[in-house]
Amino acid sequence: MTSAAPLTRRKLCEMDCDPSLLTATAAALAIRDGRLSATALLEACLGRIAARDDDVRAFSHVATNVAREQAALADKAQSEGRLAGPLHGLPVGIKDVFDTIDMPSEYGSSLLRDRRPAADAAAVAILRRAGAIIIGKTTTSEFGMYHPSATRNPNDLGRSPGVSSAGSAAAVVDRMVPLALGTQHTASTILPASFCGAYAFKPSFGSTSMEGSNILVPRLAQIGYLARSIQDLCLFAGAFDPVVDGAADRIGHPPRLAVVRGPGFEQVATDADEALTAFIDALPAAVHELDLPSEFGHAIEVALGLLNAHLAARFGDLPQHLSARLCPPLQDGIAAGHALSAKRYIELNATADRLNRLSSELFAHHDALVTLSALGEATRLDEGPGSGSLAMPWSLCGLPVVSLPLLCGAHGLPIGLQLIGRHGSDRELLQNAAWIAHTCRLPTGVDH
Amino acid sequence: MTSAAPLTRRKLCEMDCDPSLLTATAAALAIRDGRLSATALLEACLGRIAARDDDVRAFSHVATNVAREQAALADKAQSEGRLAGPLHGLPVGIKDVFDTIDMPSEYGSSLLRDRRPAADAAAVAILRRAGAIIIGKTTTSEFGMYHPSATRNPNDLGRSPGVSSAGSAAAVVDRMVPLALGTQHTASTILPASFCGAYAFKPSFGSTSMEGSNILVPRLAQIGYLARSIQDLCLFAGAFDPVVDGAADRIGHPPRLAVVRGPGFEQVATDADEALTAFIDALPAAVHELDLPSEFGHAIEVALGLLNAHLAARFGDLPQHLSARLCPPLQDGIAAGHALSAKRYIELNATADRLNRLSSELFAHHDALVTLSALGEATRLDEGPGSGSLAMPWSLCGLPVVSLPLLCGAHGLPIGLQLIGRHGSDRELLQNAAWIAHTCRLPTGVDH
Repeated sequence: MTSAAPLTRRKLCEMDCDPSLLTATAAALAIRDGRLSATALLEACLGRIAARDDDVRAFSHVATNVAREQAALADKAQSEGRLAGPLHGLPVGIKDVFDTIDMPSEYGSSLLRDRRPAADAAAVAILRRAGAIIIGKTTTSEFGMYHPSATRNPNDLGRSPGVSSAGSAAAVVDRMVPLALGTQHTASTILPASFCGAYAFKPSFGSTSMEGSNILVPRLAQIGYLARSIQDLCLFAGAFDPVVDGAADRIGHPPRLAVVRGPGFEQVATDADEALTAFIDALPAAVHELDLPSEFGHAIEVALGLLNAHLAARFGDLPQHLSARLCPPLQDGIAAGHALSAKRYIELNATADRLNRLSSELFAHHDALVTLSALGEATRLDEGPGSGSLAMPWSLCGLPVVSLPLLCGAHGLPIGLQLIGRHGSDRELLQNAAWIAHTCRLPTGVDH
Repeated sequence: MTSAAPLTRRKLCEMDCDPSLLTATAAALAIRDGRLSATALLEACLGRIAARDDDVRAFSHVATNVAREQAALADKAQSEGRLAGPLHGLPVGIKDVFDTIDMPSEYGSSLLRDRRPAADAAAVAILRRAGAIIIGKTTTSEFGMYHPSATRNPNDLGRSPGVSSAGSAAAVVDRMVPLALGTQHTASTILPASFCGAYAFKPSFGSTSMEGSNILVPRLAQIGYLARSIQDLCLFAGAFDPVVDGAADRIGHPPRLAVVRGPGFEQVATDADEALTAFIDALPAAVHELDLPSEFGHAIEVALGLLNAHLAARFGDLPQHLSARLCPPLQDGIAAGHALSAKRYIELNATADRLNRLSSELFAHHDALVTLSALGEATRLDEGPGSGSLAMPWSLCGLPVVSLPLLCGAHGLPIGLQLIGRHGSDRELLQNAAWIAHTCRLPTGVDH
């Protein structure tokens, strides 16, 4: 026997590894330990953007100089033993529906061209305090509506990346950033995560302030986290809500799962349905079928009705020369909203309240519900941006949702597995997601 | 010098005192100590009801037998050293907009004749747990709307007792009960308290569940406490929110007060305005004049608009033969509500949100605001039920409010002094109310 030299952690920058390949968790640890500089990671990300973003168009604004300055400061702080927070030195992309004091904040609309808000959004301020480097603003559909933006699917440039957080989903999947922030009123984080193949987490409604963001409907406006592993989602969301920090670090007991084929499921593509069934069948756990109460059939109509009413309230008094510049779904929504009575609006809210109450009863015998994140693989660009119908009921109820890119369609493109938890059970949901990924022998992000 | 025999607390039932004269605080203490039985107190209250309620009509239902059984149980428990809670043995009247499992719950409407709900309202359950004896249901305007009920002003039967918690206010002032529960969407506790001469406390919005009550507008539905002293208000409300318990027991520092003559003040009667001015001038404290931001001019319109919209949603689909039986203000409100668009409803809510934010800024330099509770003395019955306009802005903003019957009009009838605090500062507000009553050498209820 010979005595082995002690294992040392080599400097990552000396390795063959491209830092853009690292998960956020691995990169954060390497930066903390001094094996990787924030500058090296940033440059790798900027390199990916330079190489790819003419095609993918994930970013509407890249703050190269500001980000470089901040990365240099982060490296200096690290060398002095000062770490800002859990995201120290990590480049993050911000969906351009969040205000940033030092970058354009245009909400994807020509009406807000060159808008520079006086304050950061609450979420952006949290990210800065946690040490993140805001690398730029990711492309969004106009005012976060259901309309294609410039972004293309990084897996196939001829396909839709989904709406409206498509820029954030594409940037993460294409390794331009390890983490990106999205939002969701109905499906805006889950749909692009499914189409692009990102890991996504939309926490329980109300878990973080949406102040300084594009809030179309206060009761629907929610934050979305996009990353490349479950552990990264926990790190990212943990900067906002410490309760989820490290949720994926240990693999716990098998969750009690139920599969739901809820409103809109009749439109699911055959390959997607088969992929879901095969996945469920292969799980080493009993998975029950759960029929949703019939009232959930109103969920999509309720969500869209609320959206239209608020579009009319927000944009209905715009002068015609400005409203004419809005994208067609905005114009249609405003018109539909104008036709709604106060009585109907109150009834829509009452139905939403009932669905919220009913949704909590779905978890009496199950820890999490499983369904598809989208109707199938990413649509071709000529087919439209794709439907978010399968995400809407859960978003309307404000339940925590994870999308895992674990399924594969007929063209080899990703399809998200949507995991839904009880309101407030965000940590448990992420633990259950980690169990599923682990069971399927897929990376949970515990890879360093 | 002779040595005096130690002072003993005599049995109240042996005293000349009519227990219906006692404040709730004094009665609760006497019951606890065994100097007064719950039965004796109940019988005194029932005696007042028998003697007076044919004229005053404060009660729509008196649960004589049930209350006697419960009083006997309360006395038995006391004799065994078991006290249910702070209201042990106290008779309480419940405005008949709260569900009671053992009494009719008709919300003042012929449409709900003989309705017997399957569960107590949350507030009623709290009262029972605190040891209160529910003596009966007090008369309310139909569905708590702005419309005269059968109740008359106990100070002058030819005058209005206000709306819609008039039964509870009249019952308390006329010594039929020491405590009674009301509600308020816009002015329904403060107006009758002012007209009848009761002490009233409407806590901060959201301080207690309104489940099982007549909620016309969720964001406006609030509870109201009616009593005959500030200390009694603290005892009563303290059963719901322990933070206010005992708030009036000690007289603290002079509060920083500002007098406001807000929306609707131009309609105040001369004698009421003079009474307010004289009262303020006599206070041994600097009282500033505070001008409200002009946006408060919308408060009444906003509150009534929200009310109408929800009336349309709740009653708009009633068959005509039923809706025709509703009181005129309900029918008018439903019609006005039908005419409101979803856009307008959202705008009303947005204005309410802005007013809520603005209202918190009013307390930057003041602990409490002072104004009138009503435009003047109780109106004559032929003049209508009286206006609640002076209470509406504060109710819309969900601020805690106390009405003190400290002013007197030209006919010797009471007029309420309205004291308004910052949202969430309920204990401080009651302390400040106690300071004012103490300073004016009026009973705070520290009388036992």
